[in-house]
Amino acid sequence: MALPFRAIEGGITAVRGMMAAAIGAGLKEEGLDLALIASEREAVGAGCFTTNLLKAAPVRLCQERLGGGGPISAILINSGIANACTGEEGYRAALELTARVAESLGMAPHKVLMASTGLIGKELPLELIARAIPRLVELLGPEGGPEAARAIMTTDTLPKEAALEFEASGGRVRVGGIAKGAGMIRPRMATMLAFLATDAWVEGALLQRLLSRAVEETFNCITVDGETSTNDSVICLANGASGITLSEAAPLGAALEEVCSTLAQAIVRDGEGATKFVEVRVRGALTPQEAKQAAMAIANSLLVKTALFGEDPNWGRILAAAGASGARLNPERLTLEVGGVKIAEGGRAASGQWEEPARKALKEKSISLCLDMGLGQGESRVWTTDLSTDYVNLNARYST
Amino acid sequence: MALPFRAIEGGITAVRGMMAAAIGAGLKEEGLDLALIASEREAVGAGCFTTNLLKAAPVRLCQERLGGGGPISAILINSGIANACTGEEGYRAALELTARVAESLGMAPHKVLMASTGLIGKELPLELIARAIPRLVELLGPEGGPEAARAIMTTDTLPKEAALEFEASGGRVRVGGIAKGAGMIRPRMATMLAFLATDAWVEGALLQRLLSRAVEETFNCITVDGETSTNDSVICLANGASGITLSEAAPLGAALEEVCSTLAQAIVRDGEGATKFVEVRVRGALTPQEAKQAAMAIANSLLVKTALFGEDPNWGRILAAAGASGARLNPERLTLEVGGVKIAEGGRAASGQWEEPARKALKEKSISLCLDMGLGQGESRVWTTDLSTDYVNLNARYST
Repeated sequence: MALPFRAIEGGITAVRGMMAAAIGAGLKEEGLDLALIASEREAVGAGCFTTNLLKAAPVRLCQERLGGGGPISAILINSGIANACTGEEGYRAALELTARVAESLGMAPHKVLMASTGLIGKELPLELIARAIPRLVELLGPEGGPEAARAIMTTDTLPKEAALEFEASGGRVRVGGIAKGAGMIRPRMATMLAFLATDAWVEGALLQRLLSRAVEETFNCITVDGETSTNDSVICLANGASGITLSEAAPLGAALEEVCSTLAQAIVRDGEGATKFVEVRVRGALTPQEAKQAAMAIANSLLVKTALFGEDPNWGRILAAAGASGARLNPERLTLEVGGVKIAEGGRAASGQWEEPARKALKEKSISLCLDMGLGQGESRVWTTDLSTDYVNLNARYST
Repeated sequence: MALPFRAIEGGITAVRGMMAAAIGAGLKEEGLDLALIASEREAVGAGCFTTNLLKAAPVRLCQERLGGGGPISAILINSGIANACTGEEGYRAALELTARVAESLGMAPHKVLMASTGLIGKELPLELIARAIPRLVELLGPEGGPEAARAIMTTDTLPKEAALEFEASGGRVRVGGIAKGAGMIRPRMATMLAFLATDAWVEGALLQRLLSRAVEETFNCITVDGETSTNDSVICLANGASGITLSEAAPLGAALEEVCSTLAQAIVRDGEGATKFVEVRVRGALTPQEAKQAAMAIANSLLVKTALFGEDPNWGRILAAAGASGARLNPERLTLEVGGVKIAEGGRAASGQWEEPARKALKEKSISLCLDMGLGQGESRVWTTDLSTDYVNLNARYST
């Protein structure tokens, strides 16, 4: 489906009516570590959060406030400390800090959300952050998106922004967002955060449905190391600043998916120690769920990931990962391609001279693997990285 | 339960009536690569095999022949090539080679099993192996166990043998075995094989039940890299050479578990690139299954394994792995100990000065982690290793 999206510069503040700011509050040794995103007008909010049972305090706060269905106006985000595994004290810290933001903005506390990323188990330095809030609010502006994108980084090497525009009846609608990815040099906890906004006006239940679907196809289809963090959060605000009300899934759903897809791929490309961006496609499974099961098993297999790091067309490891994934399969129907080169067929090595072209495909920065299970119509696509010695070194270093 | 087992020297041929031999047939660049285990008299056989849907040809052959319920007399084992993902040709090769062994031993082909370990997708050099079989049969003897234990190694750095003796009514019964573990330098496919024997006489269904239970508590509780191979096989023969018939689970079941436990731990200690032996205990889960789910999630977590490599008491990663494992839990009831030192309590950092003693415990070669979920009676114990840069380097090297 080729939709008429036009990519535009910027991220969250490319959306009309959205403001942002960032500041260094002293949570990280240096640089920006506290961001605020705010909408000029009250917005409809929707969110998708980690399924880890150890949900961080800010995740619980967001789920409660979004669950209430009321309007949302701002999101406070800190990097450096995850505020996870911090008990009731951590939850009260999130309550207190969002109340301070609300006070500075002159609004009710339940209109402010919070997200955190960083080391698990450490407590937020409440006063340090509280002191920075008034200045942060002063700095809020429509140019603040790029700085906010930097302030939420931990071991990310690049900020991640995406925005686009599309024509709706009545005018142009924009969708934009920022994200941070997995990295653990310091504070060493893989946490994925993304903040999106649209200047369309959309009913809350519809926005949630569209966001959930977009997240399922994008952020929930990436894996760097198979770890589900305590803080994963994707939050979307619809503020209606374009003056356009959308009441149908299309094209906003596709636009959200497009922005999420760009941000999700950026997270994978910047994955810790990653030297490759790898798309794993599985088709011909009995169900889409089993296709995803097999694709995720391949994407998380240490033997597959180390072979990709070594640029080695070790198809046996890929098939074996699928075979142990829990997805139903018939070994004799399996076909595997790397970069369009067939390297296994009927569950065995492909015939012909595939080794040279397969090795060449594996030398690229972006690699595609496609496993056809030959059984049904189930399809899935997962983005991942290789596993390098850098990943191990980064994560073995002192962190607690 | 302190059972009166006495550890004895040797492995599979420590069991009376068991013979073995090994030879270098040219499958590996150098050294022994073909082994034969045989019983002087017909034995009862039992086996446990990989759950990977891509079962290697020799696994299929063993399952068929053991499923038939008839007596078993010998097992041919090669290292270097896994004979997995080799289609019907691979299966015919296993049929042909076991027929050659049977011919040399003067018995029916269905009394011979086969196991292979090595690179997936490569075909066995049929003639090379067939030519070596008559000499292998000549070499068979009661002293051959240690050489057989060496011949089945791939990247193992040490052979793995265990044997014990216990008193039954009527005399002493012996149980012994050999195993190989995970390693991928060459031929680079993690494959776990173990061969056990007892000189008791036991009915086939009982032997299978006792073996399955022992395997569940030992080999199925180890993980080096979370990969389920295409060739995993544990085979046990009961040849009755002691003249003693056992018709009850105890003490043979406990003896089998003891031998399996020794071999399984030896596999973990010799895991690829491993610098630590780690016991992960989970208790207080709602069910034993959920305890195992949580223990396995911790044992397979890249973030936990790299922290162990870095000797870092990063308790947040351990709790987060349990939280994403699918096991039901209440964060506020979680308690975590490392080497007996409490480092997390109520889902948060433990109070007091735990950091120094925890760091000291993590410097040991053997480490114990104990997570108490505080909910029920479910318990589990898993053995694993850390994840080192050596693991990545070994598995990134050219292998296909």
